[in-house]
Amino acid sequence: MEISVIPVILVCSILALLSAGYYANQVLSLKVDSKSSGLSEDKISRLKEISGAISEGAMAFLSQEYKYVAGFAAVFTILIFFVLDNSATPDVNEGLYSAIAFVTGAVISSVCAFLGMRIATAGNVRTTIAATKSITDAFRVAFNSGAVMGFGLTGLAVLGMLAIVMLFRHLIPESIEQHYIMEMVAGFGLGGSTVALFGRVGGGIYTKAADVGADLVGKVEAGIPEDDPRNPAVIADNVGDNVGDIAGMGADLFGSCAEATCAALVIGATSAALAGNIDALLYPLLISAVGIPICLITAMFARLKANATQVEPTLRGQLIISTVLMSVAIYFATNWAMIDSFDLGSMTVTRNGVLASVLSGLWAGMLIGYMTERYTSHGFKHVRRLAAASDKGPAINIIYGLSLGYESAVVPVIAIALTTYISWTYAGMYGIAMSAIGMISTIATGLTIDAYGPVSDNAGGIAEMAELPKQVRERTDLLDAAGNTTAAIGKGFAIGSAVLTALALFAAFLTRAHFESLNMLSPMVFAGLFVGGVLPFLFTAQTMLAVGRAAEGMIVEVRRQFREIPGLLEGKAKADYRRCVAISTKSALQEMIAPAILVLFAPMVVGVIFGVEALAGLLAGSLISGVVMALSTSNSGGGWDNAKKYIEKTEGKGTEKHKAAVVGDTVGDPFKDTSGPSLNILMKLMAILSLVFVPFFQSAHEWLLQALGM
Amino acid sequence: MEISVIPVILVCSILALLSAGYYANQVLSLKVDSKSSGLSEDKISRLKEISGAISEGAMAFLSQEYKYVAGFAAVFTILIFFVLDNSATPDVNEGLYSAIAFVTGAVISSVCAFLGMRIATAGNVRTTIAATKSITDAFRVAFNSGAVMGFGLTGLAVLGMLAIVMLFRHLIPESIEQHYIMEMVAGFGLGGSTVALFGRVGGGIYTKAADVGADLVGKVEAGIPEDDPRNPAVIADNVGDNVGDIAGMGADLFGSCAEATCAALVIGATSAALAGNIDALLYPLLISAVGIPICLITAMFARLKANATQVEPTLRGQLIISTVLMSVAIYFATNWAMIDSFDLGSMTVTRNGVLASVLSGLWAGMLIGYMTERYTSHGFKHVRRLAAASDKGPAINIIYGLSLGYESAVVPVIAIALTTYISWTYAGMYGIAMSAIGMISTIATGLTIDAYGPVSDNAGGIAEMAELPKQVRERTDLLDAAGNTTAAIGKGFAIGSAVLTALALFAAFLTRAHFESLNMLSPMVFAGLFVGGVLPFLFTAQTMLAVGRAAEGMIVEVRRQFREIPGLLEGKAKADYRRCVAISTKSALQEMIAPAILVLFAPMVVGVIFGVEALAGLLAGSLISGVVMALSTSNSGGGWDNAKKYIEKTEGKGTEKHKAAVVGDTVGDPFKDTSGPSLNILMKLMAILSLVFVPFFQSAHEWLLQALGM
Repeated sequence: MEISVIPVILVCSILALLSAGYYANQVLSLKVDSKSSGLSEDKISRLKEISGAISEGAMAFLSQEYKYVAGFAAVFTILIFFVLDNSATPDVNEGLYSAIAFVTGAVISSVCAFLGMRIATAGNVRTTIAATKSITDAFRVAFNSGAVMGFGLTGLAVLGMLAIVMLFRHLIPESIEQHYIMEMVAGFGLGGSTVALFGRVGGGIYTKAADVGADLVGKVEAGIPEDDPRNPAVIADNVGDNVGDIAGMGADLFGSCAEATCAALVIGATSAALAGNIDALLYPLLISAVGIPICLITAMFARLKANATQVEPTLRGQLIISTVLMSVAIYFATNWAMIDSFDLGSMTVTRNGVLASVLSGLWAGMLIGYMTERYTSHGFKHVRRLAAASDKGPAINIIYGLSLGYESAVVPVIAIALTTYISWTYAGMYGIAMSAIGMISTIATGLTIDAYGPVSDNAGGIAEMAELPKQVRERTDLLDAAGNTTAAIGKGFAIGSAVLTALALFAAFLTRAHFESLNMLSPMVFAGLFVGGVLPFLFTAQTMLAVGRAAEGMIVEVRRQFREIPGLLEGKAKADYRRCVAISTKSALQEMIAPAILVLFAPMVVGVIFGVEALAGLLAGSLISGVVMALSTSNSGGGWDNAKKYIEKTEGKGTEKHKAAVVGDTVGDPFKDTSGPSLNILMKLMAILSLVFVPFFQSAHEWLLQALGM
Repeated sequence: MEISVIPVILVCSILALLSAGYYANQVLSLKVDSKSSGLSEDKISRLKEISGAISEGAMAFLSQEYKYVAGFAAVFTILIFFVLDNSATPDVNEGLYSAIAFVTGAVISSVCAFLGMRIATAGNVRTTIAATKSITDAFRVAFNSGAVMGFGLTGLAVLGMLAIVMLFRHLIPESIEQHYIMEMVAGFGLGGSTVALFGRVGGGIYTKAADVGADLVGKVEAGIPEDDPRNPAVIADNVGDNVGDIAGMGADLFGSCAEATCAALVIGATSAALAGNIDALLYPLLISAVGIPICLITAMFARLKANATQVEPTLRGQLIISTVLMSVAIYFATNWAMIDSFDLGSMTVTRNGVLASVLSGLWAGMLIGYMTERYTSHGFKHVRRLAAASDKGPAINIIYGLSLGYESAVVPVIAIALTTYISWTYAGMYGIAMSAIGMISTIATGLTIDAYGPVSDNAGGIAEMAELPKQVRERTDLLDAAGNTTAAIGKGFAIGSAVLTALALFAAFLTRAHFESLNMLSPMVFAGLFVGGVLPFLFTAQTMLAVGRAAEGMIVEVRRQFREIPGLLEGKAKADYRRCVAISTKSALQEMIAPAILVLFAPMVVGVIFGVEALAGLLAGSLISGVVMALSTSNSGGGWDNAKKYIEKTEGKGTEKHKAAVVGDTVGDPFKDTSGPSLNILMKLMAILSLVFVPFFQSAHEWLLQALGM
């Protein structure tokens, strides 16, 4: 046991970056020209034009978003720099270090989203081209595009955190206790989470405003098919897929990874035994790092047979293989790096306790994914029952769809409760953080599959818009169908890890606030629980209405173009795609202001005015109802979507039953792609904000009480 | 201060019963004959026939329901008798006394519901007859019918509890401490709550199965108007109004009143000072008793001018007047009966602390009522915005309606959090129970107004079915419109009081389990919180699907009658109303089994297997998400209903916009009349079950641990 974990983490993260580079090269080496595709020059230039427009739109959104992020982060950096000051550590400028960590986290997260979008918007058209040859080729291109995101993001996240930890340990005097250092490292998580706020909430509004806008005017009013180039919102719709599922999902999972690790570091460093053993201290990072080679091995199994009729088993196999392999890897990594036992507060944690925590998180993630599929795939009874009930009209479809979502939350919540119970019992609050890390330890595989979805979806859209042969669209449809299911599973997974991460951050916050226990039977805590419990509902209302309003703006613009551009509907004139992209971008960023303020200010206001106890209640309350709302909105949405698809597959379009199903699907759009995923951010961001700002809340609250003479 | 509170409570409750008798006489003295009404003999016999059918249907449901209740209560009585045994009180057969209290509570609650249904089904046709004369007369009959329920129920509840307390104090040896006696009295609340389970859940399914069934086949398929006698489900629909809003609401509020009082008695009696002073001990009962004369005075202001164009201000005035007067009464009652200060656990509670608790509850109820009206009446912006958005189709209507409900919960939850904070801070857990009692201290007025609704609604239905002159229907419509708003307010009020009551029971449960504090940062508690948080969602799904399935049965039957009874649609043959009534009754009672099992067994299973700590977490979690779900489903439903009505009023029926609004209204039906109100029962029943069975859970759990060798 001569080797330290540091080189191992370093090697793994560099391996991840090299793999990302390899996959990127695989994708980009495919030329978009007629020679290598056999398509006519005409078609090639059309393909280039369309994918160029999507790419341009995606970058337009990102650059706008980053302007907001930059402005916002600047304000936050200044705030962190000035208000964070811990009297216990007079020798260190806590604000400065926290600010450095914050900026690093925000920048790395932004870079990940940028690279992910770049490769996805290059991979989409190449998937289309590969689909002219075979389904196997097309699958490989889409999968490789996803893998760039999966491995690139994981590598950068692990490398970034390792760098910050080592840098701070180097710069900060040795006299300062490790746990103070880790509290400053936590700024990294806050940085990642801030970007995720814009990515998930802003991106979520963008994608559904464009989708709903395109559908309601294009499909319903004008009667033109999905992805028809005459629809002015069609490019915005395709951009939206990337904005939501690449940039948004990436930032969300980056946040979970960074925040869970920060939480584990903050809690772990309070134990003298861990703080004194760098290998054991960096154990959380090691788990994430070890996941990288595991996911690489897993990726080698991702092959599709030439005559494949469905892609789902392959993708599902990825999750199962990575989970099984990861279990073994975790066992060895824990036995190698973790010490026999250590004291944490008043309890003694054993190595096996830590192992149990990590494994329970990992397998709970699997279970949540499985239940998500059961409730959202039309291979199972719930979606079929929803589809069957649709013949009684839209109202019954809505009732069944909502019920499906509510019910679907039961088993995942019990799984989360069980994980919480196991890890907390056997490894204290450190265990909770480690269970979150366990759940996202296969993040590279998860992200690969997630990012695969919008690439396939876009590939189909591009094939449609470029009017390629029907066979091409059929192949991309096959790819896309699997993407829908894995997107739902990915969402369940993201929610599960967000809850555990938020709980870990909550634990770290309590550790930092020196709460050994928190009496629920206190007026402040209980009042906080009530108010916290209502926040996810308010936030859901805000984000749903935001989509409604943003979609309205899009509807007005599409109608205007149909009216004012002569020959557009006949296919003789070109639509002004850019205006639609600009409208989506602008309204998404505007509409996210209100929910963002809620998330950012609720903990601030409660923490300063009512104190840290009330804030603890607020956070716990928001978790308790937030997890159910997130799961049920995502799964209702997924259920409605697939019930509609099932009806289309078995009975076709145009019937009253199908119309009823379309109503559910439209309600489900903001449910599953805006409100549900955004709740992840609500839970995590409120918790990490509280963690980072604890000392400020405490001093400001005391000052306030004194000023009021209380 | 020579008089004891006992005669005062006694006099007030007898006053309530006398008033109920007076109001009943006022209603029943109105003859249903052609002489006193000026209607033809033909019309009179038609009126008698219709109202007879409704009355018969209502009694058919009640008698079926009571069979279930009786069987269920018998099992429960045996269970209570055998498992409740407190080793601390060897001289008393705790099971026996608890069982006596349980049966008494169940019987009184059933009697109240029975009497309420009797008077409502006699009052409806008399309101119709009075409406042939003037709106003032009609209003008075409907109001008086409601008052019978309001005062009768309050009087019986207070009298019943006084009797049980005095009886137990008389029978049980003086050596037994008062708080043990009060723990046995708590069985009374459980009895009331059990009846409420059947009334609210079974009744809620009944009313909406009949309503949705009647509407979907009658209005939508056959194209005949609401309340048309050709519709076979029309009597079931009218019966349903009574079943839901008279029997269900009555049992719910009876439960809140009984349970909150029991909680206050259990907690209060742990204080030696209160236990030693009968006046102070019975103070909770005194507050409910004093509400009776206050509500009687308030009722004298319930007059409608002859040329009145709306009834809402009169009814709203009732709530405001009773709240203002009650505030004064509470002040004097508290100064009279409550002692200067007393010790409760480790805190000292002052008289002013108690006063603050009661008043905060009373006024929080007012605020919740006000906010409910703001969000569900089409006089305000939220419903108007929902109506306006309906022109973009049913999906947007659903999105806006759900958002409206989510948003509407924010202020009420903050009000509840504030009340919790104030009462808990100033009067400990006793304060929480007293705030609940404060909120329902004007219950007689609240119930009067609630019961007024279905009477007016039925009166309109009867006028329609008997084909009375248009003017009559217009007058009853005027009465009914106000009933809709007050029904929404009543629901908000019932939810608020249910939450506070549940919280009070939770406090009493913790007191009985000897929890001085409950560490939220324990694995068991937190896991319990998570699982508790998902229960309201599961319960909502169950009750919504129950309505869906029950309505399907009704739809099949109505279609069958239209098909098989020749001449029915032409009005030449008579529909078989009884079969529809029988179907509603049967399916409602069948469909309530699953949600009932959830409510009854969840605390049992968790308490015995995981222990009282986990159960505490479960209860708290179910409250945190339950209150938001209850408020938001009720208000979404109310909003959809009134948005539809607003569109009908301003733009008429038949447009696409109206159709979209009908979709929302249909989704809202089970939301507001089944799932939302049923959640009250979920919250309260789980809490009182836990309170009553604490000693059993503790001993069974210990036994289990030993058996497992843990």
